[in-house]
Amino acid sequence: MGKNSNNNNYDFNIKINRSTISKQKLFVLRLDHRPHRDLRISTHTALVARAFGMDGIFFSGVPDKKLCEKVNKVTENFGGDFLVRTGCDWKKIIKEWLSQGGEIIHLSMYGLTLPEIIEKIRNSSKDKLVVIGGPKVPREIYSIATYNVSVTNQPHSEIAALAVFLNYYHKGQEFYYEFKNAKIKIIPNKNGKKFAT
Amino acid sequence: MGKNSNNNNYDFNIKINRSTISKQKLFVLRLDHRPHRDLRISTHTALVARAFGMDGIFFSGVPDKKLCEKVNKVTENFGGDFLVRTGCDWKKIIKEWLSQGGEIIHLSMYGLTLPEIIEKIRNSSKDKLVVIGGPKVPREIYSIATYNVSVTNQPHSEIAALAVFLNYYHKGQEFYYEFKNAKIKIIPNKNGKKFAT
Repeated sequence: MGKNSNNNNYDFNIKINRSTISKQKLFVLRLDHRPHRDLRISTHTALVARAFGMDGIFFSGVPDKKLCEKVNKVTENFGGDFLVRTGCDWKKIIKEWLSQGGEIIHLSMYGLTLPEIIEKIRNSSKDKLVVIGGPKVPREIYSIATYNVSVTNQPHSEIAALAVFLNYYHKGQEFYYEFKNAKIKIIPNKNGKKFAT
Repeated sequence: MGKNSNNNNYDFNIKINRSTISKQKLFVLRLDHRPHRDLRISTHTALVARAFGMDGIFFSGVPDKKLCEKVNKVTENFGGDFLVRTGCDWKKIIKEWLSQGGEIIHLSMYGLTLPEIIEKIRNSSKDKLVVIGGPKVPREIYSIATYNVSVTNQPHSEIAALAVFLNYYHKGQEFYYEFKNAKIKIIPNKNGKKFAT
Protein backbone atom coordinates (compact mmCIF):
# COMPACT_ATOMS: atom_id res chain seq x y z
CA MET A 1 0.00 0.00 0.00
CA GLY A 2 3.00 2.35 0.30
CA LYS A 3 1.80 5.72 1.50
CA ASN A 4 -1.27 4.31 3.21
CA SER A 5 0.35 1.39 4.94
CA ASN A 6 -0.72 2.68 8.35
CA ASN A 7 -4.38 2.41 7.52
CA ASN A 8 -5.57 -1.10 8.09
CA ASN A 9 -9.00 -0.44 6.67
CA TYR A 10 -7.69 0.15 3.23
CA ASP A 11 -4.83 -2.29 3.08
CA PHE A 12 -5.93 -4.13 -0.03
CA ASN A 13 -2.73 -6.16 0.04
CA ILE A 14 -4.16 -8.11 2.90
CA LYS A 15 -2.29 -11.06 4.31
CA ILE A 16 -4.62 -13.67 2.99
CA ASN A 17 -3.82 -16.52 0.69
CA ARG A 18 -5.44 -15.25 -2.45
CA SER A 19 -8.08 -17.62 -3.73
CA THR A 20 -7.28 -19.50 -6.91
CA ILE A 21 -10.75 -18.90 -8.26
CA SER A 22 -9.82 -15.48 -9.65
CA LYS A 23 -6.51 -13.97 -10.68
CA GLN A 24 -7.73 -10.52 -9.79
CA LYS A 25 -8.34 -9.19 -6.31
CA LEU A 26 -12.05 -9.16 -5.68
CA PHE A 27 -13.62 -7.12 -2.90
CA VAL A 28 -17.06 -5.76 -2.06
CA LEU A 29 -17.77 -2.30 -0.76
CA ARG A 30 -21.17 -2.24 0.94
CA LEU A 31 -22.34 1.31 1.52
CA ASP A 32 -23.92 2.63 4.69
CA HIS A 33 -24.08 -0.25 7.15
CA ARG A 34 -26.11 0.43 10.28
CA PRO A 35 -25.53 -2.18 13.01
CA HIS A 36 -28.98 -3.02 14.34
CA ARG A 37 -30.99 -2.45 11.22
CA ASP A 38 -28.58 -4.15 8.84
CA LEU A 39 -26.88 -6.91 10.81
CA ARG A 40 -28.62 -9.80 9.10
CA ILE A 41 -28.63 -8.29 5.60
CA SER A 42 -24.95 -7.39 5.93
CA THR A 43 -24.04 -10.82 7.29
CA HIS A 44 -25.78 -12.46 4.32
CA THR A 45 -23.92 -10.11 1.97
CA ALA A 46 -20.53 -10.89 3.50
CA LEU A 47 -21.17 -14.63 3.49
CA VAL A 48 -22.22 -14.53 -0.16
CA ALA A 49 -19.02 -12.65 -1.00
CA ARG A 50 -17.01 -15.32 0.80
CA ALA A 51 -18.90 -18.35 -0.57
CA PHE A 52 -18.71 -17.05 -4.13
CA GLY A 53 -14.95 -16.56 -4.03
CA MET A 54 -14.20 -12.97 -3.07
CA ASP A 55 -11.27 -11.84 -0.94
CA GLY A 56 -13.13 -9.60 1.45
CA ILE A 57 -15.75 -6.97 2.15
CA PHE A 58 -15.61 -3.37 3.32
CA PHE A 59 -18.61 -1.72 4.95
CA SER A 60 -18.94 2.03 5.15
CA GLY A 61 -21.24 3.40 7.84
CA VAL A 62 -21.14 2.56 11.53
CA PRO A 63 -18.44 0.19 12.86
CA ASP A 64 -19.89 -3.17 13.88
CA LYS A 65 -17.79 -5.64 15.84
CA LYS A 66 -20.62 -8.17 16.00
CA LEU A 67 -20.87 -8.34 12.22
CA CYS A 68 -17.12 -8.98 11.92
CA GLU A 69 -17.29 -11.70 14.57
CA LYS A 70 -20.17 -13.48 12.86
CA VAL A 71 -18.42 -13.53 9.49
CA ASN A 72 -15.02 -14.47 10.94
CA LYS A 73 -16.61 -17.36 12.82
CA VAL A 74 -17.86 -18.81 9.53
CA THR A 75 -14.44 -18.39 7.92
CA GLU A 76 -12.82 -20.07 10.91
CA ASN A 77 -15.12 -23.08 10.62
CA PHE A 78 -15.55 -23.36 6.88
CA GLY A 79 -12.05 -22.34 5.82
CA GLY A 80 -10.36 -20.05 3.39
CA ASP A 81 -9.29 -16.47 3.99
CA PHE A 82 -11.74 -13.62 4.01
CA LEU A 83 -11.34 -10.05 5.17
CA VAL A 84 -14.16 -8.06 6.75
CA ARG A 85 -13.87 -4.41 7.79
CA THR A 86 -16.59 -2.07 9.03
CA GLY A 87 -16.75 1.68 9.56
CA CYS A 88 -14.77 2.40 6.38
CA ASP A 89 -14.61 5.68 4.47
CA TRP A 90 -16.11 4.77 1.12
CA LYS A 91 -14.74 7.78 -0.75
CA LYS A 92 -11.22 6.99 0.39
CA ILE A 93 -11.52 3.31 -0.50
CA ILE A 94 -12.76 4.08 -4.00
CA LYS A 95 -10.11 6.74 -4.55
CA GLU A 96 -7.30 4.44 -3.46
CA TRP A 97 -8.66 1.47 -5.35
CA LEU A 98 -8.71 3.47 -8.57
CA SER A 99 -5.29 5.02 -7.89
CA GLN A 100 -3.86 1.53 -7.58
CA GLY A 101 -5.19 0.60 -10.99
CA GLY A 102 -8.29 -1.26 -9.90
CA GLU A 103 -11.75 -0.83 -11.38
CA ILE A 104 -15.19 -0.31 -9.84
CA ILE A 105 -18.25 -2.38 -10.61
CA HIS A 106 -21.46 -0.89 -9.29
CA LEU A 107 -24.45 -3.21 -9.05
CA SER A 108 -27.89 -1.61 -9.20
CA MET A 109 -31.12 -2.09 -11.11
CA TYR A 110 -30.20 0.73 -13.50
CA GLY A 111 -26.96 -0.50 -15.05
CA LEU A 112 -26.13 -2.46 -18.18
CA THR A 113 -27.54 -5.98 -18.44
CA LEU A 114 -25.22 -8.46 -16.72
CA PRO A 115 -25.03 -11.17 -19.42
CA GLU A 116 -24.18 -8.51 -22.01
CA ILE A 117 -21.35 -6.86 -20.09
CA ILE A 118 -19.85 -9.73 -18.09
CA GLU A 119 -17.39 -10.90 -20.73
CA LYS A 120 -15.84 -7.46 -20.95
CA ILE A 121 -15.51 -7.34 -17.17
CA ARG A 122 -14.12 -10.87 -17.04
CA ASN A 123 -11.57 -10.16 -19.74
CA SER A 124 -10.18 -7.13 -17.92
CA SER A 125 -7.10 -7.97 -15.87
CA LYS A 126 -7.78 -5.23 -13.34
CA ASP A 127 -8.64 -5.86 -9.69
CA LYS A 128 -12.34 -5.48 -9.01
CA LEU A 129 -14.17 -3.58 -6.30
CA VAL A 130 -17.88 -4.40 -6.41
CA VAL A 131 -19.98 -1.59 -4.91
CA ILE A 132 -23.50 -2.23 -3.63
CA GLY A 133 -26.03 0.04 -1.86
CA GLY A 134 -27.65 1.00 0.63
CA PRO A 135 -31.14 2.26 -0.16
CA LYS A 136 -29.61 5.66 -0.86
CA VAL A 137 -26.65 5.32 -3.19
CA PRO A 138 -24.83 8.64 -3.73
CA ARG A 139 -25.36 9.81 -7.29
CA GLU A 140 -21.64 10.14 -7.92
CA ILE A 141 -21.18 6.36 -7.64
CA TYR A 142 -22.90 6.03 -11.01
CA SER A 143 -20.31 8.25 -12.69
CA ILE A 144 -17.28 6.99 -10.74
CA ALA A 145 -18.06 3.34 -11.56
CA THR A 146 -16.08 1.73 -14.35
CA TYR A 147 -19.12 -0.43 -15.00
CA ASN A 148 -22.71 0.04 -13.84
CA VAL A 149 -24.28 -3.40 -14.00
CA SER A 150 -27.88 -4.49 -13.49
CA VAL A 151 -28.94 -7.93 -12.35
CA THR A 152 -32.39 -7.60 -13.86
CA ASN A 153 -34.00 -4.15 -13.96
CA GLN A 154 -36.36 -5.01 -11.14
CA PRO A 155 -36.04 -4.05 -7.49
CA HIS A 156 -34.98 -7.05 -5.42
CA SER A 157 -31.90 -7.57 -3.25
CA GLU A 158 -28.25 -6.55 -3.31
CA ILE A 159 -27.48 -9.96 -1.78
CA ALA A 160 -29.03 -11.71 -4.77
CA ALA A 161 -27.44 -9.30 -7.23
CA LEU A 162 -24.00 -9.96 -5.77
CA ALA A 163 -24.43 -13.74 -5.90
CA VAL A 164 -25.66 -13.80 -9.48
CA PHE A 165 -22.94 -11.37 -10.59
CA LEU A 166 -20.24 -13.54 -9.00
CA ASN A 167 -21.70 -16.70 -10.46
CA TYR A 168 -21.49 -15.17 -13.95
CA TYR A 169 -18.05 -13.73 -13.29
CA HIS A 170 -16.66 -17.08 -12.10
CA LYS A 171 -18.67 -19.09 -14.62
CA GLY A 172 -19.94 -21.28 -11.78
CA GLN A 173 -16.47 -22.27 -10.56
CA GLU A 174 -17.55 -21.40 -7.03
CA PHE A 175 -19.54 -24.63 -6.92
CA TYR A 176 -16.31 -26.59 -6.97
CA TYR A 177 -14.08 -24.29 -4.98
CA GLU A 178 -12.27 -25.89 -2.03
CA PHE A 179 -11.74 -23.66 1.00
CA LYS A 180 -8.39 -24.30 2.67
CA ASN A 181 -8.14 -25.31 6.31
CA ALA A 182 -11.86 -25.94 6.71
CA LYS A 183 -12.87 -27.47 10.02
CA ILE A 184 -16.26 -28.38 8.61
CA LYS A 185 -16.83 -29.60 5.09
CA ILE A 186 -20.29 -30.32 3.70
CA ILE A 187 -20.66 -33.30 1.38
CA PRO A 188 -23.46 -32.86 -1.21
CA ASN A 189 -26.20 -35.31 -0.34
CA LYS A 190 -29.50 -36.46 -1.82
CA ASN A 191 -31.69 -36.30 1.26
CA GLY A 192 -29.88 -35.48 4.45
CA LYS A 193 -27.06 -33.61 6.10
CA LYS A 194 -23.62 -35.04 5.54
CA PHE A 195 -20.40 -33.41 6.59
CA ALA A 196 -16.80 -34.14 7.44
CA THR A 197 -14.93 -32.48 10.31
CA MET B 1 -58.30 -26.38 -5.66
CA GLY B 2 -61.51 -28.43 -5.29
CA LYS B 3 -61.89 -29.52 -1.69
CA ASN B 4 -59.80 -26.65 -0.36
CA SER B 5 -61.30 -23.88 -2.39
CA ASN B 6 -62.32 -22.02 0.76
CA ASN B 7 -58.78 -21.64 1.91
CA ASN B 8 -57.19 -18.63 0.27
CA ASN B 9 -53.77 -19.37 1.67
CA TYR B 10 -53.35 -22.49 -0.35
CA ASP B 11 -55.11 -21.59 -3.53
CA PHE B 12 -52.34 -22.39 -5.95
CA ASN B 13 -54.66 -21.71 -8.86
CA ILE B 14 -54.36 -18.07 -8.14
CA LYS B 15 -55.97 -15.53 -10.38
CA ILE B 16 -52.77 -14.21 -11.83
CA ASN B 17 -51.71 -14.13 -15.42
CA ARG B 18 -49.14 -16.88 -15.35
CA SER B 19 -45.77 -15.64 -16.46
CA THR B 20 -44.52 -16.84 -19.80
CA ILE B 21 -41.06 -17.43 -18.43
CA SER B 22 -41.95 -20.89 -17.15
CA LYS B 23 -44.63 -23.37 -18.17
CA GLN B 24 -44.78 -24.75 -14.66
CA LYS B 25 -46.19 -23.03 -11.63
CA LEU B 26 -43.34 -21.77 -9.54
CA PHE B 27 -43.79 -20.80 -5.90
CA VAL B 28 -41.56 -20.33 -2.86
CA LEU B 29 -42.36 -21.54 0.61
CA ARG B 30 -40.26 -19.62 3.15
CA LEU B 31 -40.35 -21.28 6.53
CA ASP B 32 -40.80 -19.55 9.87
CA HIS B 33 -41.16 -15.84 9.14
CA ARG B 34 -41.09 -13.59 12.21
CA PRO B 35 -42.30 -10.05 11.48
CA HIS B 36 -39.81 -7.75 13.19
CA ARG B 37 -36.71 -9.91 12.96
CA ASP B 38 -37.27 -11.05 9.36
CA LEU B 39 -39.06 -8.19 7.59
CA ARG B 40 -36.10 -7.11 5.48
CA ILE B 41 -34.77 -10.60 4.77
CA SER B 42 -38.26 -11.80 3.84
CA THR B 43 -38.92 -8.74 1.66
CA HIS B 44 -35.68 -9.39 -0.23
CA THR B 45 -36.67 -13.03 -0.64
CA ALA B 46 -40.10 -12.18 -2.01
CA LEU B 47 -38.73 -9.55 -4.40
CA VAL B 48 -36.12 -12.00 -5.70
CA ALA B 49 -38.86 -14.56 -6.30
CA ARG B 50 -40.83 -11.95 -8.24
CA ALA B 51 -37.90 -10.50 -10.20
CA PHE B 52 -36.66 -13.94 -11.21
CA GLY B 53 -40.01 -15.06 -12.59
CA MET B 54 -41.91 -16.90 -9.89
CA ASP B 55 -45.66 -16.79 -9.37
CA GLY B 56 -45.71 -16.15 -5.66
CA ILE B 57 -44.41 -16.83 -2.18
CA PHE B 58 -45.87 -18.41 0.94
CA PHE B 59 -44.46 -17.66 4.38
CA SER B 60 -45.11 -19.92 7.32
CA GLY B 61 -44.73 -18.40 10.78
CA VAL B 62 -46.38 -15.24 12.03
CA PRO B 63 -48.79 -13.31 9.72
CA ASP B 64 -47.28 -10.02 8.54
CA LYS B 65 -49.45 -7.47 6.80
CA LYS B 66 -46.55 -5.04 6.41
CA LEU B 67 -44.50 -7.57 4.47
CA CYS B 68 -47.41 -8.20 2.09
CA GLU B 69 -47.92 -4.47 1.59
CA LYS B 70 -44.26 -3.86 0.79
CA VAL B 71 -44.15 -6.62 -1.80
CA ASN B 72 -47.52 -5.72 -3.33
CA LYS B 73 -46.41 -2.11 -3.67
CA VAL B 74 -43.47 -3.21 -5.82
CA THR B 75 -45.71 -5.40 -7.97
CA GLU B 76 -48.13 -2.51 -8.39
CA ASN B 77 -45.36 -0.21 -9.59
CA PHE B 78 -43.16 -2.60 -11.54
CA GLY B 79 -45.86 -4.81 -12.99
CA GLY B 80 -46.66 -8.45 -13.43
CA ASP B 81 -48.65 -10.63 -11.07
CA PHE B 82 -47.20 -11.96 -7.88
CA LEU B 83 -48.90 -13.59 -4.91
CA VAL B 84 -47.70 -13.16 -1.35
CA ARG B 85 -49.25 -14.91 1.66
CA THR B 86 -48.05 -14.96 5.25
CA GLY B 87 -48.99 -17.05 8.28
CA CYS B 88 -49.33 -20.23 6.22
CA ASP B 89 -49.32 -23.80 7.51
CA TRP B 90 -46.23 -25.25 5.83
CA LYS B 91 -47.19 -28.90 6.36
CA LYS B 92 -50.54 -28.35 4.72
CA ILE B 93 -49.04 -26.47 1.78
CA ILE B 94 -46.50 -29.20 1.12
CA LYS B 95 -49.10 -31.95 1.47
CA GLU B 96 -51.49 -30.27 -0.95
CA TRP B 97 -48.75 -29.35 -3.39
CA LEU B 98 -47.65 -32.97 -3.60
CA SER B 99 -51.22 -34.28 -3.76
CA GLN B 100 -51.80 -32.04 -6.78
CA GLY B 101 -48.85 -33.59 -8.57
CA GLY B 102 -46.31 -30.87 -7.86
CA GLU B 103 -42.78 -31.43 -6.65
CA ILE B 104 -40.69 -29.93 -3.88
CA ILE B 105 -37.25 -28.41 -4.30
CA HIS B 106 -35.48 -27.74 -1.03
CA LEU B 107 -32.52 -25.37 -1.15
CA SER B 108 -29.88 -25.77 1.54
CA MET B 109 -26.12 -26.10 1.75
CA TYR B 110 -26.40 -29.87 2.10
CA GLY B 111 -28.14 -30.89 -1.11
CA LEU B 112 -26.94 -32.01 -4.52
CA THR B 113 -24.82 -29.55 -6.49
CA LEU B 114 -27.07 -27.19 -8.49
CA PRO B 115 -25.35 -27.35 -11.91
CA GLU B 116 -25.43 -31.17 -11.74
CA ILE B 117 -29.12 -31.52 -10.91
CA ILE B 118 -30.69 -28.52 -12.65
CA GLU B 119 -31.28 -30.17 -16.00
CA LYS B 120 -33.26 -32.97 -14.41
CA ILE B 121 -35.36 -30.41 -12.52
CA ARG B 122 -35.81 -28.28 -15.63
CA ASN B 123 -36.86 -31.25 -17.72
CA SER B 124 -39.59 -32.27 -15.29
CA SER B 125 -42.99 -30.94 -16.28
CA LYS B 126 -44.23 -30.80 -12.68
CA ASP B 127 -45.09 -27.60 -10.85
CA LYS B 128 -42.33 -26.52 -8.48
CA LEU B 129 -42.50 -25.44 -4.86
CA VAL B 130 -39.10 -24.16 -3.74
CA VAL B 131 -38.67 -24.48 0.03
CA ILE B 132 -36.12 -22.37 1.90
CA GLY B 133 -35.30 -22.04 5.63
CA GLY B 134 -35.28 -20.49 8.33
CA PRO B 135 -32.24 -21.15 10.49
CA LYS B 136 -33.99 -24.25 11.85
CA VAL B 137 -35.34 -26.34 9.01
CA PRO B 138 -37.37 -29.33 10.25
CA ARG B 139 -35.47 -32.54 9.50
CA GLU B 140 -38.44 -34.04 7.63
CA ILE B 141 -38.11 -31.41 4.87
CA TYR B 142 -34.98 -33.22 3.71
CA SER B 143 -36.87 -36.48 3.20
CA ILE B 144 -40.11 -34.93 1.88
CA ALA B 145 -38.25 -32.92 -0.78
CA THR B 146 -38.25 -34.30 -4.31
CA TYR B 147 -34.86 -32.63 -4.75
CA ASN B 148 -32.48 -31.32 -2.13
CA VAL B 149 -30.30 -28.81 -3.92
CA SER B 150 -27.22 -26.92 -2.72
CA VAL B 151 -26.09 -23.58 -4.10
CA THR B 152 -22.49 -24.12 -3.00
CA ASN B 153 -21.86 -26.12 0.18
CA GLN B 154 -20.98 -23.00 2.14
CA PRO B 155 -23.20 -21.11 4.56
CA HIS B 156 -24.43 -17.89 2.97
CA SER B 157 -27.95 -16.67 2.27
CA GLU B 158 -31.25 -18.20 1.23
CA ILE B 159 -31.89 -15.02 -0.77
CA ALA B 160 -28.76 -15.65 -2.84
CA ALA B 161 -29.49 -19.36 -3.12
CA LEU B 162 -32.96 -18.64 -4.49
CA ALA B 163 -31.69 -16.13 -7.05
CA VAL B 164 -28.92 -18.38 -8.36
CA PHE B 165 -31.26 -21.38 -8.47
CA LEU B 166 -33.84 -19.42 -10.48
CA ASN B 167 -31.18 -18.03 -12.80
CA TYR B 168 -30.05 -21.59 -13.60
CA TYR B 169 -33.62 -22.83 -13.87
CA HIS B 170 -34.61 -20.08 -16.30
CA LYS B 171 -31.25 -20.08 -18.08
CA GLY B 172 -31.04 -16.33 -17.57
CA GLN B 173 -34.37 -15.57 -19.30
CA GLU B 174 -35.30 -13.38 -16.34
CA PHE B 175 -32.94 -10.72 -17.66
CA TYR B 176 -35.23 -10.19 -20.61
CA TYR B 177 -38.57 -10.77 -19.00
CA GLU B 178 -41.15 -8.01 -19.47
CA PHE B 179 -43.54 -7.44 -16.58
CA LYS B 180 -47.01 -6.58 -17.77
CA ASN B 181 -48.75 -3.36 -16.73
CA ALA B 182 -45.64 -1.83 -15.20
CA LYS B 183 -46.01 1.79 -14.09
CA ILE B 184 -42.24 2.14 -13.87
CA LYS B 185 -39.83 0.55 -16.30
CA ILE B 186 -36.07 0.81 -15.87
CA ILE B 187 -33.98 1.21 -19.01
CA PRO B 188 -30.46 -0.30 -18.74
CA ASN B 189 -27.99 2.56 -18.75
CA LYS B 190 -24.22 2.99 -18.76
CA ASN B 191 -23.85 5.59 -16.02
CA GLY B 192 -27.09 6.91 -14.64
CA LYS B 193 -30.70 6.21 -13.80
CA LYS B 194 -33.03 6.01 -16.72
CA PHE B 195 -36.65 4.96 -16.54
CA ALA B 196 -39.94 5.25 -18.32
CA THR B 197 -43.25 5.77 -16.55
